[in-house]
Amino acid sequence: MANTFGHLYRVTTWGESHGGGVGAVVDGCPPRIPLAEKDLQPDLDRRRPGQSKIVTPRNEADRCEILSGVFGGKTLGTPISVWVRNQDARPEAYREMETMFRPSHADYTYQAKYGIRNWQGGGRTSARETIGRVIGGSIAKRMFGQLVPRLSVTTFVRQVGSVVARMEAGRVERSEVEANPVRWPDAKEAAQVVRLIERVRSEGDSLGGVVECVVRGCPVGLGEPVFDRLEADLAKGMMSLPASKGFEIGSGFSGVRMRGSEHNDEFFVQGKKVRTRTNRSGGVQGGISNGEEIVFRVAFKPVATISRSQKTVNSKGKAVELRARGRHDPCVLPRAVPMVEAMAFLVLADHYLRDRAQMGLSRK
Amino acid sequence: MANTFGHLYRVTTWGESHGGGVGAVVDGCPPRIPLAEKDLQPDLDRRRPGQSKIVTPRNEADRCEILSGVFGGKTLGTPISVWVRNQDARPEAYREMETMFRPSHADYTYQAKYGIRNWQGGGRTSARETIGRVIGGSIAKRMFGQLVPRLSVTTFVRQVGSVVARMEAGRVERSEVEANPVRWPDAKEAAQVVRLIERVRSEGDSLGGVVECVVRGCPVGLGEPVFDRLEADLAKGMMSLPASKGFEIGSGFSGVRMRGSEHNDEFFVQGKKVRTRTNRSGGVQGGISNGEEIVFRVAFKPVATISRSQKTVNSKGKAVELRARGRHDPCVLPRAVPMVEAMAFLVLADHYLRDRAQMGLSRK
Amino acid sequence: MANTFGHLYRVTTWGESHGGGVGAVVDGCPPRIPLAEKDLQPDLDRRRPGQSKIVTPRNEADRCEILSGVFGGKTLGTPISVWVRNQDARPEAYREMETMFRPSHADYTYQAKYGIRNWQGGGRTSARETIGRVIGGSIAKRMFGQLVPRLSVTTFVRQVGSVVARMEAGRVERSEVEANPVRWPDAKEAAQVVRLIERVRSEGDSLGGVVECVVRGCPVGLGEPVFDRLEADLAKGMMSLPASKGFEIGSGFSGVRMRGSEHNDEFFVQGKKVRTRTNRSGGVQGGISNGEEIVFRVAFKPVATISRSQKTVNSKGKAVELRARGRHDPCVLPRAVPMVEAMAFLVLADHYLRDRAQMGLSRK
Amino acid sequence: MANTFGHLYRVTTWGESHGGGVGAVVDGCPPRIPLAEKDLQPDLDRRRPGQSKIVTPRNEADRCEILSGVFGGKTLGTPISVWVRNQDARPEAYREMETMFRPSHADYTYQAKYGIRNWQGGGRTSARETIGRVIGGSIAKRMFGQLVPRLSVTTFVRQVGSVVARMEAGRVERSEVEANPVRWPDAKEAAQVVRLIERVRSEGDSLGGVVECVVRGCPVGLGEPVFDRLEADLAKGMMSLPASKGFEIGSGFSGVRMRGSEHNDEFFVQGKKVRTRTNRSGGVQGGISNGEEIVFRVAFKPVATISRSQKTVNSKGKAVELRARGRHDPCVLPRAVPMVEAMAFLVLADHYLRDRAQMGLSRK
Repeated sequence: MANTFGHLYRVTTWGESHGGGVGAVVDGCPPRIPLAEKDLQPDLDRRRPGQSKIVTPRNEADRCEILSGVFGGKTLGTPISVWVRNQDARPEAYREMETMFRPSHADYTYQAKYGIRNWQGGGRTSARETIGRVIGGSIAKRMFGQLVPRLSVTTFVRQVGSVVARMEAGRVERSEVEANPVRWPDAKEAAQVVRLIERVRSEGDSLGGVVECVVRGCPVGLGEPVFDRLEADLAKGMMSLPASKGFEIGSGFSGVRMRGSEHNDEFFVQGKKVRTRTNRSGGVQGGISNGEEIVFRVAFKPVATISRSQKTVNSKGKAVELRARGRHDPCVLPRAVPMVEAMAFLVLADHYLRDRAQMGLSRK
Repeated sequence: MANTFGHLYRVTTWGESHGGGVGAVVDGCPPRIPLAEKDLQPDLDRRRPGQSKIVTPRNEADRCEILSGVFGGKTLGTPISVWVRNQDARPEAYREMETMFRPSHADYTYQAKYGIRNWQGGGRTSARETIGRVIGGSIAKRMFGQLVPRLSVTTFVRQVGSVVARMEAGRVERSEVEANPVRWPDAKEAAQVVRLIERVRSEGDSLGGVVECVVRGCPVGLGEPVFDRLEADLAKGMMSLPASKGFEIGSGFSGVRMRGSEHNDEFFVQGKKVRTRTNRSGGVQGGISNGEEIVFRVAFKPVATISRSQKTVNSKGKAVELRARGRHDPCVLPRAVPMVEAMAFLVLADHYLRDRAQMGLSRK
Repeated sequence: MANTFGHLYRVTTWGESHGGGVGAVVDGCPPRIPLAEKDLQPDLDRRRPGQSKIVTPRNEADRCEILSGVFGGKTLGTPISVWVRNQDARPEAYREMETMFRPSHADYTYQAKYGIRNWQGGGRTSARETIGRVIGGSIAKRMFGQLVPRLSVTTFVRQVGSVVARMEAGRVERSEVEANPVRWPDAKEAAQVVRLIERVRSEGDSLGGVVECVVRGCPVGLGEPVFDRLEADLAKGMMSLPASKGFEIGSGFSGVRMRGSEHNDEFFVQGKKVRTRTNRSGGVQGGISNGEEIVFRVAFKPVATISRSQKTVNSKGKAVELRARGRHDPCVLPRAVPMVEAMAFLVLADHYLRDRAQMGLSRK
Repeated sequence: MANTFGHLYRVTTWGESHGGGVGAVVDGCPPRIPLAEKDLQPDLDRRRPGQSKIVTPRNEADRCEILSGVFGGKTLGTPISVWVRNQDARPEAYREMETMFRPSHADYTYQAKYGIRNWQGGGRTSARETIGRVIGGSIAKRMFGQLVPRLSVTTFVRQVGSVVARMEAGRVERSEVEANPVRWPDAKEAAQVVRLIERVRSEGDSLGGVVECVVRGCPVGLGEPVFDRLEADLAKGMMSLPASKGFEIGSGFSGVRMRGSEHNDEFFVQGKKVRTRTNRSGGVQGGISNGEEIVFRVAFKPVATISRSQKTVNSKGKAVELRARGRHDPCVLPRAVPMVEAMAFLVLADHYLRDRAQMGLSRK
């Protein structure tokens, strides 16, 4: 529980932003999957601070080291322990956090729950914690590369502040997304969004947005009724990410305005496959993948850390004024993309193994 | 997994819409909680079909029977098994489902995954499955009645089709909600919504909507970083409900349009309590309850079963025309209210016990 | 936890000896396994009281009813709920248990832990609880019947009091065992054991013993390092049975007297299979089945309920004299055989599905 | 599963004997428990090779490093990651293991299950894996030091080969045990056992034995019916240790020869406590601790690695002759003591938190 995700493909993460490091132990991964540190590093690089001018200038190299579970370049079927040593720690930059509760941060709730917290850089509540998730998701991606090579996950920023990307999910290409620093589906709009982010940063403020994710080539049959529906586990995974405030799949919140006759996805047969003409279901029906694209969106609130002065209270219950000094992102969205992708892979990997357990391989 | 929800307060549900019955086994409930069938029946009655003119006319009494775990009117600390015998089954009304895949239902995905399905009335995919959830949630409500009496959950319909209730969540009263058949926060608007539902039903069509839930009096400190954040488990619980397509907490999807300086919840001290002036966080910060109202919303798609003729395919891959004959809801929202409430209680109960395990009772 | 066993093949049991009934919910069973009540009844009959003159004369028919998870004679892949209604309850026969703590029973510990207990007939601590285990194990047996038909489990009584069966485990036949009321490997010795049991019963006393179990045809590769070794999960399953006090596999406690050079199982090749010449490992090496017979033993203490007068204390802390009036077994061993067998099937089924999840079916 | 032990106090271990290192992540530990590396090192030193002349001369310093979960000398309530870097690796010493299956080792079963294995020094099957267990158990010991200071665990070697210690469990003192290299209850007998071990080692052979464990001061009420009885979880923990072949609690296997009238533990009242005059139950009744000493024994087979030549087969199915060259223990028993103790603490810690979750703190 708590710091472990998944039942069969299990990721346990650990680590605070300040301290020895952060890492993950992946248990349950099938054996004989090719794996090396260089396979994980690109995903960690997509997550790390300092990767572009619109994210936090903290420069963390985030070099990972595989400590176990791999031998001769392949997974052993035993736990894969991977970690990243902490560097560039400047605890003094966070000294005010020792006593102050930053608004819309977890300082107060951690203190109230645990009676203690690592206040340096947010400790366990720092986004640095997501390194473990990215490690786990990246290994899952390698697993699918061997076992279901047709499966792909394309994740991009759909919205920043009030600016919404116009391109349909089905047409978004991963290469396009990764070619611009916002991870926006098209380059032209991206340039505008970069300017928006820079402007808001210069104002000492921050932005929120929406990440969208499209899973293509998912086998039919993943997901388990009734509690572990595929969309339920995706929702849990996404809502466990720092700063996420909402999740929707397929037609989502806007679909509630339709009538059933408009909303229903008509079945037809294409070749030997049962397909649907529309995809308001978002690739999942009755909690189980139906072979169409799985499409979902995750809302992220504007970053809580801002440079402007804010009123708050300290741990002694006194009213105080806070002005954050640490380096931070004006908009977490570009870096949220690899986090959403990692959680998607974790959910898919777990359900893939679960399906294989109960059903065998007769179907695929 | 799959049919079990929770780690410490655990509910395992079972049953198909047709067959012996449906039920739940609740494990982990503390001992000495007063409990009888009459405590559970009101919640089951709020869920059952035939309770008002705007829901399905199927008349299922849904009388529950407690088979174990209670002695002398109190829980024993052993598993509480409760069930409802199936009645009023008319499998012939569903004969077309034997071979046809109803659009936006789970017929196809179940058949593809399991190679077999109970096609009578939807089997395990029927909303009848939620009886087990309501049983589990209702027992959790009794538990809180003993252990945290100040905690209350108020759940209501925020939106049907394009009609949105205007009342703020903080002002909604449970008695008001339960006094009208739509479970709408105010009676006047409710009458209009009833008319809308009746009109759409007469057109052989269906409606979706949004349920909102407010938890008051929740202890500070529930929820566990990093994967089992309170909002993550709420999201999972809600997205595991039939027909749900979206979840948001606090400011949710609309909050992404704000700047950080607007969105942040300023702390202040009231008496001895740390409070926030706004509640865009929705009562949860860093995955842990902060003592404010927990406020979240769940989107439900329009009911997939409609009386109008629809194109689809059958299990042999032939294109066919389907016209549903079973009795069904034109709008699931009023009956979704007790389901959302049940899942909220399940999540809260589990996290309450988890918090008690790790922290002891020193704090409360 | 607690009342659920297994990770993928999961059995949740419920029920007290007095109350509505006892039962089990089996989740995770593969679909399309032929299953009917008549398949389960023989195993329940082997467990039930009143089956022969050497067990308790309580006559409980223990007729099971399948409530869900089966359709058209086959499993659906959804939870299988099975129960047995309680009958022949004579709570007045147990009136002294309301206040007295029976020696070497769970009356005191339940009262101390829960502050409440169903004292009628032992409640949840009654051996009647094992009905749920037998249901779960019997369904697992059917699963293997379809998926690994060569796998068989032979369970028998190795020892009663000081009398030890002489036959080697490898030569014991199930038909022979089930042909005598003690479930002893050979008929001649069995007659003597029957006389011993009858004599001890007439003295108002009771006997313990050892059950031995041999699994033949188990696939190579079941079991997972490091905590969920096959023998660890077998040990847990067996030590969770009422009255069990010890578990050993292969050479067990007597093997510790050997030197390594005597104890090691030499490998050789037979056809295409790697085999061992001896089997002190008991069919498991490094926690994983090696294809040899899995052989283990379980010690059961003498039945705690005896007709003789005993000194004890009551719930008010007063010294009292107790003379049990209920009907009870003088020796639980014959009825322990189907319980041990059920737990063996539960462990094997869970590990079979777990192996299938991580490894796929490439190997078998 | 698999590499994680416990539900609430959870230990996930990782690492092979050769590779980056071995370690553990402890999740669920209560916050504000004083903890530093120097607290863990003594237990690791009791486990490590090279600590005395009767164990393997491999000299592994096994210095641990805490990477997360501790701040200002106290636990944070977040995951505690601790590791030991691998040193003194001489993979060439194990070159024969690349192709040969060592008798009564896990080489064959790992190869058969996973299709790959780290053959250097046994990889994941090496006793080096138990470092993670000792770390987890040692942290649990610290937790009890704060929360239940009266609880103590005394573990010692009861038997080596055919030599059995005479002292009653109740009289064994931890200081006495730790004062001699065999961890034997009394010093005089210990000297003989040392000579036995040295003689067998000089013969190129190995010995087995029995470890006994006594838990004093355990709160009443730990353990959960029906599957997670305290003795069931102890059995699982112990039988998951490398080389263990048997587990018994209280009267164990020898108790089966008694009559019920001899075996039953008579209750009496001492002060305000309900006590038993004898302790054949071994401190657990109905799966729940009764406040008496918890006493259990674990059988360990003779070490499989011996210097003598042995017949076996290689991975190509050819008959070969094997003579082990690695440095190894002639008798694992002295080093098994801290392993047994660690598993005992893990089980107790988990059940302590579980009890606290369901029952609150009203009782203690």
